[in-house]
Amino acid sequence: MNTLEHLMQVMSKLPGLGPRSARRTVLHLLKNRETTMRDLTTALSEAMLHVKTCSTCGALDSQSPCGICLDSTRDPHVICVVEDVADLWAIERCQTLRGLYHVLGGTLSAMDGIGPDQLHIPRLIQRVVDGDIREVVLATNATLEGQTTAHYIAEKLKPYAVTVTRLAYGIPVGGELDYLDDGTLHAALHARLSLQDAS
Amino acid sequence: MNTLEHLMQVMSKLPGLGPRSARRTVLHLLKNRETTMRDLTTALSEAMLHVKTCSTCGALDSQSPCGICLDSTRDPHVICVVEDVADLWAIERCQTLRGLYHVLGGTLSAMDGIGPDQLHIPRLIQRVVDGDIREVVLATNATLEGQTTAHYIAEKLKPYAVTVTRLAYGIPVGGELDYLDDGTLHAALHARLSLQDAS
Repeated sequence: MNTLEHLMQVMSKLPGLGPRSARRTVLHLLKNRETTMRDLTTALSEAMLHVKTCSTCGALDSQSPCGICLDSTRDPHVICVVEDVADLWAIERCQTLRGLYHVLGGTLSAMDGIGPDQLHIPRLIQRVVDGDIREVVLATNATLEGQTTAHYIAEKLKPYAVTVTRLAYGIPVGGELDYLDDGTLHAALHARLSLQDAS
Repeated sequence: MNTLEHLMQVMSKLPGLGPRSARRTVLHLLKNRETTMRDLTTALSEAMLHVKTCSTCGALDSQSPCGICLDSTRDPHVICVVEDVADLWAIERCQTLRGLYHVLGGTLSAMDGIGPDQLHIPRLIQRVVDGDIREVVLATNATLEGQTTAHYIAEKLKPYAVTVTRLAYGIPVGGELDYLDDGTLHAALHARLSLQDAS
């Protein structure tokens, strides 16, 4: 296989890229060899060398402990538990929670042999024991696996003097009732708020 | 900006990748650092060093003249004219035409200042003059720009003893009449074939 075919084959294995978009991307890169292609190659090599997994929270950063763990402006008493680094990034983007994180790296799964140890749940408990943690926000996905994992963690945290919360279920902002699934609508009705109380 | 953000920013500029898919791709790469990420970085560096534009036909290959131009099993009397390397690859995949190519690198465009010289049309004429070329297949896109360019080339080739052809217009194989645009249906009706003649 020649250089060009090899590059296209590697590209086509990236998530969301099939053979057609891989070809298109490779052509785009070769047409912009001194700009985009060089930038991408350099950025990849740099990231491969320098990006680390934070030994405390499991986030990705160029240092460990990561920038978030070292950030003194954050509330060190709140830990937000997420399944994946992508979820951490999503919560960071909305800038509502300015606490610390704990990245599980997945959900409990007997079938895939993923137990509490693989998800660093003992390490989370240890962080609660060691630090002055007041609240653990369980921000796992609203899927069966995510909720099972959250439930397991909540049980494990029961012996400790820490508030355990989860994200609210409800209508997504901008969502139309007619297009919502029954489960979400049920949750939104169930958790309805008095307009007198709402701030 | 840190290493990770930089990589995501470069990624998000690739065609078809927005910020969300760039994040997903970067995470996928970092999770497969020793396999996919290493392969991609190596393949990119290799391609950047070794892929060349063929000095004869304009195709991309690790050598110039390219493998197609040097392939002695091909019909050297037929040149297929395409707008882009991606179009050449598409025609190669269907394995119908086993001749040579001429990549224009675009279409004539007064607005973008793209004239015959930028598209290497003089070099195409020269190939017809120099070689024993019997047929030039104009395989430009069925767009206004593609057809204008094809028309221009056909005019330029008139003085030479060479057959100039274009791709057939018609119903795409598997296409349903109800979903076709009027132009395609008109072309398919206009170029209808006698079933007695059809092979």
